Amino acid sequence: MKELKSLTPYREALRLLLEDLSEIPETEEVELGEALGRVLAEDVVSPIDSPPFDRSAVDGYAVRAEDTFQAREYRPVEIKVIDEITAGEASKVKVEPGTAVKLTTGAKIPEGANAVLMQEMAEREGDVIRVLRPVAPGQNVAFAGEDVRKGEVVLRKGQVLRPQDLALLKSLGFKKVEVKRKPRVGIIITGDELVEEFDEEALNSGKIMESNSIMLEGLVKRYFGEPVFYGVLPDDEGVIGETLGKAKEENDLVLITGGSAFGDKDFAHRFVKLLFHGTTIKPGRPMGYGERVFVMSGYPVSAFAQFHLYVKHALAKLTGARDYEVRVKAKLTERVPSQLGRYEFVKVRYENGVARPIKKKGSGIISSVVESNGYIGIPEDSEGYLEGETVEVVLY
Amino acid sequence: MKELKSLTPYREALRLLLEDLSEIPETEEVELGEALGRVLAEDVVSPIDSPPFDRSAVDGYAVRAEDTFQAREYRPVEIKVIDEITAGEASKVKVEPGTAVKLTTGAKIPEGANAVLMQEMAEREGDVIRVLRPVAPGQNVAFAGEDVRKGEVVLRKGQVLRPQDLALLKSLGFKKVEVKRKPRVGIIITGDELVEEFDEEALNSGKIMESNSIMLEGLVKRYFGEPVFYGVLPDDEGVIGETLGKAKEENDLVLITGGSAFGDKDFAHRFVKLLFHGTTIKPGRPMGYGERVFVMSGYPVSAFAQFHLYVKHALAKLTGARDYEVRVKAKLTERVPSQLGRYEFVKVRYENGVARPIKKKGSGIISSVVESNGYIGIPEDSEGYLEGETVEVVLY
Repeated sequence: MKELKSLTPYREALRLLLEDLSEIPETEEVELGEALGRVLAEDVVSPIDSPPFDRSAVDGYAVRAEDTFQAREYRPVEIKVIDEITAGEASKVKVEPGTAVKLTTGAKIPEGANAVLMQEMAEREGDVIRVLRPVAPGQNVAFAGEDVRKGEVVLRKGQVLRPQDLALLKSLGFKKVEVKRKPRVGIIITGDELVEEFDEEALNSGKIMESNSIMLEGLVKRYFGEPVFYGVLPDDEGVIGETLGKAKEENDLVLITGGSAFGDKDFAHRFVKLLFHGTTIKPGRPMGYGERVFVMSGYPVSAFAQFHLYVKHALAKLTGARDYEVRVKAKLTERVPSQLGRYEFVKVRYENGVARPIKKKGSGIISSVVESNGYIGIPEDSEGYLEGETVEVVLY
Repeated sequence: MKELKSLTPYREALRLLLEDLSEIPETEEVELGEALGRVLAEDVVSPIDSPPFDRSAVDGYAVRAEDTFQAREYRPVEIKVIDEITAGEASKVKVEPGTAVKLTTGAKIPEGANAVLMQEMAEREGDVIRVLRPVAPGQNVAFAGEDVRKGEVVLRKGQVLRPQDLALLKSLGFKKVEVKRKPRVGIIITGDELVEEFDEEALNSGKIMESNSIMLEGLVKRYFGEPVFYGVLPDDEGVIGETLGKAKEENDLVLITGGSAFGDKDFAHRFVKLLFHGTTIKPGRPMGYGERVFVMSGYPVSAFAQFHLYVKHALAKLTGARDYEVRVKAKLTERVPSQLGRYEFVKVRYENGVARPIKKKGSGIISSVVESNGYIGIPEDSEGYLEGETVEVVLY
């Protein structure tokens, strides 16, 4: 095996690949009901004021505030109730001096009125209310455009759509929304040592159950993409070259695992003009990238780290997704040493402000990933962190 | 409107409803490829050691460590290479004193060998290697069961399945996994004031666009449930009673919005024996719960708070889901006052250790929810938090 001559620093490699990629131009219009988790393709501007009219924030009486200014508990003001409406109705009458309209929360403030007297603050007898205290102009009124003004940007391009975003869109009259096409991500798994069906005998004789495909498919789905699986290939240069060529043509990105090093059976990188091959990340060092192809490790933990450190950001670049990572501050329960010159991907279990490093080592140890729910990235120039130190955890 | 006589404290109301619900017994077996995001129904125990055999952690030569103990750079030890294997292959030979087997990373350690000499540490000439330094027993060997031992619990009941969990299951030979049936959640929206189709004239005359249904559907999906929509109903006691009866029969939970207070048109609670009606949460005070029915507010922000404070936990109870909430510590950018006697649901924008309260007020102001990505819950006995204080944020 040739050694990787120079390792491209993590940030530098990330910059190279992000510069190499550009946002997918294609968008698609989908029904709001289908838009959950999709990436918004453009800023959304409100076509209306919301609420579109001044409305009552309480159950009570729409009045002219001026009519109540003299009201005192010992000298109530009498006002005549001339109409009664509920939310969803508009009164046809105008509130003239000395009159009021009874209404419920959410009902439109009638013409002439400028305040709402809470129901509990009035004594009613027949069609007359006795007002005990003055109300100020605007009191208990929710004004038009208070939530959203016409022309205001309510959602920004790149938003990953959540239930509340869809509710806002619906309340503004939208039925559909323009989202980015999902990037297609070809997944190719290589390695003579892999079996796809569980077979104890094969495993005992040295074979390994293939498990990267389902992990990468799930990760691609979670980060806005559509996985396309090209199967598990033998270490055959011809087969790998042909499949890789096809996958490159049919997808926005290709992930190929196994054969990322320089061994005799490491073929994948021979078909791709790589922008970098070998990076300081640990685990996952022998990764390469070029021509929209990620040449990744066969070891599940390395592939997982490579996905989070590189591929995830590539998918965000392709879709323009914003806020796709949750970063939290946490106190370390113990010391984490790190090798100088390596960007260490340290798996941790984060809970309520505290991060516990997962001790199990080894790039095949997928159970260590399962135990964790986030990672710390320790830069090349750091020898690690001390017990009790506050670090940044990226949750996954 | 009658006032709500007594408000049940938030925690007490939550306890009452969680005690009233029990975990769904039904489970279903699904293919691993369909299991992403589903809730694991039982502990998963590994049927095998993983890896099932001792394997090499590097490319190199499997040797008997004892043979190398005398090796020095100035006095190399010569060892004969008797076989060559790659990952996925097992050697048929036994490593006897003075012999070695060449192998690649992941290959099974041949019988007789107990360590692996890294390729770079040996000088090769023909079928002989010259060993320059001793290797210790076990060096560069990944031992059987190092990742997972046979009989070990690898995933616990209640795990919400992630890509890495599926990879672990696949690597242990599982093709399917037992998950909880998704709870069915009936959603009923009520209110004469609501319109389902955008109609500027209707809105100007006081109507309101219905937007709770899509929000609740999305939230139910996100928290392991299957929403079943029963439509937008008029404020008609008969229609509401009938639909509610049907929805109760057909679902594990029912969410009905609008009419949660005690107004003339608040019908929903008349059909349900409520365990509590009125709680200290703000917004969302007039909520009621009983007989698996949540009588919720029509105001989107109140309904959103009620979902996160109550319904989400109910869905977790029904499915047994664990770790379904991310709680982070954050420094407040400004003071947040809170009313004594109220459990305030304060929307915040969390970013990298800092929480900024979203100022917009009003229970109809859905744009305030959109701006936020989490909440702080301020207990009834607190008057709020100071600028710079560290608080707990629940992300959503």
